[in-house]
Amino acid sequence: MTLSPSPTISARTAGVRGSAIRDLLTLTARPDVISLAGGLPAADLLPRERIAAAAARALTDPAAVQYGETAGLARLREVVAAHETERGTGGARGPVLPGDVVVTSGSQQALDLLARAVLDPGDAVVVEDPGYVGALQVFQAAGAVVVPVGLDADGMRVDELADLLAGGLRPRLVHTVSSFHNPRGVTLAAERRRALAELADRHGFLVVEDDPYGLLAFDGATPAPVAAHGERVVRLGSASKVLAPALRVGWLVGPGEVTAAVELLRQGADLCGSTLTQSIAADLLGDRDWFAGHLATLRREGAARAAAFTTAVAELLPDAVGSDPTGGMFCWLEFPEGTDTTAALPRALDAGVGFVPGSAFAVGTPLPAAARCCFASHPPEVLHEAVRRLATALAVPSGRGRST
Amino acid sequence: MTLSPSPTISARTAGVRGSAIRDLLTLTARPDVISLAGGLPAADLLPRERIAAAAARALTDPAAVQYGETAGLARLREVVAAHETERGTGGARGPVLPGDVVVTSGSQQALDLLARAVLDPGDAVVVEDPGYVGALQVFQAAGAVVVPVGLDADGMRVDELADLLAGGLRPRLVHTVSSFHNPRGVTLAAERRRALAELADRHGFLVVEDDPYGLLAFDGATPAPVAAHGERVVRLGSASKVLAPALRVGWLVGPGEVTAAVELLRQGADLCGSTLTQSIAADLLGDRDWFAGHLATLRREGAARAAAFTTAVAELLPDAVGSDPTGGMFCWLEFPEGTDTTAALPRALDAGVGFVPGSAFAVGTPLPAAARCCFASHPPEVLHEAVRRLATALAVPSGRGRST
Repeated sequence: MTLSPSPTISARTAGVRGSAIRDLLTLTARPDVISLAGGLPAADLLPRERIAAAAARALTDPAAVQYGETAGLARLREVVAAHETERGTGGARGPVLPGDVVVTSGSQQALDLLARAVLDPGDAVVVEDPGYVGALQVFQAAGAVVVPVGLDADGMRVDELADLLAGGLRPRLVHTVSSFHNPRGVTLAAERRRALAELADRHGFLVVEDDPYGLLAFDGATPAPVAAHGERVVRLGSASKVLAPALRVGWLVGPGEVTAAVELLRQGADLCGSTLTQSIAADLLGDRDWFAGHLATLRREGAARAAAFTTAVAELLPDAVGSDPTGGMFCWLEFPEGTDTTAALPRALDAGVGFVPGSAFAVGTPLPAAARCCFASHPPEVLHEAVRRLATALAVPSGRGRST
Repeated sequence: MTLSPSPTISARTAGVRGSAIRDLLTLTARPDVISLAGGLPAADLLPRERIAAAAARALTDPAAVQYGETAGLARLREVVAAHETERGTGGARGPVLPGDVVVTSGSQQALDLLARAVLDPGDAVVVEDPGYVGALQVFQAAGAVVVPVGLDADGMRVDELADLLAGGLRPRLVHTVSSFHNPRGVTLAAERRRALAELADRHGFLVVEDDPYGLLAFDGATPAPVAAHGERVVRLGSASKVLAPALRVGWLVGPGEVTAAVELLRQGADLCGSTLTQSIAADLLGDRDWFAGHLATLRREGAARAAAFTTAVAELLPDAVGSDPTGGMFCWLEFPEGTDTTAALPRALDAGVGFVPGSAFAVGTPLPAAARCCFASHPPEVLHEAVRRLATALAVPSGRGRST
């Protein structure tokens, strides 16, 4: 979507880039298209019956339909604090307390409120390249100057960040999707997490540790959170990928000054979240045995789907180099040099498959030959068919040389 | 809540005033206190069973727990468009179409996204004085220069606004709570609605017609919306006061350029609303017979409660002048000159009653002797007891002169 410059719309809004992905979701919603485009949890694995039971239980209490506290339902803040403590978020500082948690409408709102709380126009913000589009939108809307840092198989190139800092860069925020990166699929290595937290302490910036996928490790293990290693880390979590997106429950854990500012801004942003969906989230996250079993299912199924997808890619798209997912939802494909995945997308949709071209995530480095594919949304047999269709649309035309 | 100036928090956030009302809600949540402070719908009139039935029905569809479209659930946009058409919002322009509607997380989010879409720092915004605190917070956060305009028994002093415009004021937005004003309880007269829309056309500003209470007219009638009289009106609606706050469903109807910008900003703000609660809202608002019956109950009960409250005020607080509610949720009380309702609040809480001091709503004119009381949240007998406690706390001390 592009907005024509207009006297009605503010100068800043006119500079905000719409999400190509959300526009794409409309296209890929066609029933004949297998969509690998969205970051949607698998419909067949969403715990709908358990949510219905929790809703029915919550609605026996009149408080479930009334306004709630801006910082979030007390019971949910308790459950999230316990959950983050268990994940190691508190580090040597001790347990995460309910007062350290602000519940938000998905972790996207946490990101937006955080940006509004700490950024002034012109502030520098470091992002990963390629990066999470929702974060880029937020930082653009806040008028920040976005500085890209690369990624490799161990996540953000913290050494590259250190060089930029040594060169005089003074960012206000450094954003990282620390586990099972969107879109690259990689996980920030343990030693880099420690180094990143130390750089934050030394140079006075805040790390935004955006972690919606961390619980989806196929083997159940991810390194301790960046937040375990220092105080200048704001950790964002979400129920969207482990329970259901429609709950619109995310959270922010951070220094008191930050949580207070975020809570204050949420008053004006939307007063409070839904007491009903927060009650449901507290019920499901707080039911330890059920949640452990549910996570085990998501991990087992995620691993099976990732394996089906990468096997099909190896078989049917031998020219492409795919990432090797160990958790999360995404596989990153790199096609031979000269491939233009943006140009190929209409052909792919005609062939009945959707993906997100790499260029949608590009910050500083163009990524014309890459694509993000979500393997989580479909069962193995559907993924195989999706890759077959991809191969049709992205077949190297005769006469075009290969780069390898 | 006050934030100490800090290098972590942005200069703009540090200037945002917290809502005294939301802070007060914490105090008045004490079980021994009858709260007249919140703008909370009556717990006993919230349609909890009907919501539970709608939730159970919605949850038979996997789509109800998935991500949804940023502009809102298609079915809800249809229902809201039909509902706004019936209220006359389209005026001579014809019916409101689903594409004219953006669903938001309560009308507060509509207000926030609208401000972000159209305001640049330093823009002038006209607000009513006293005014809705949630709007003031939003305009402050956007860096706007707030210009107050007075109210009388017929709502905003549109003549005062016309004088300011004649004097050279060029606001970007003019905000009005057009029906059953928060906090004053008054309704903008029909001829003023027309005049306001004409001023918007002549001077190029947008009217924000904030209308969460319009359906709560005790006799079922309010003048046609301001939006009926011109195109430069953005109309905000809400399900919070007529269904339930926990659905977090509000909406914005306005020019295409504005709805497109608001939708774009919502991508970054929180991606989308809850498909589950939007399904519930569409079910209830779309069930015409049920909704008509429910509204009739709210109106009948509202009238009975307002009557009980004003009768008790006449009997037990003879020095106070109360507004004469004809709908909505609020009665505005003015005590004799020299009364300090802010100072009296702790005494009132000790006596077991809460209210919001007039000063919380003051923009340009201090209102030390006024109070906003919500009559909607309690049945008549509880309201009588609340006024008795108010009388104890606000009794004119002997020796202090009366202003009348």
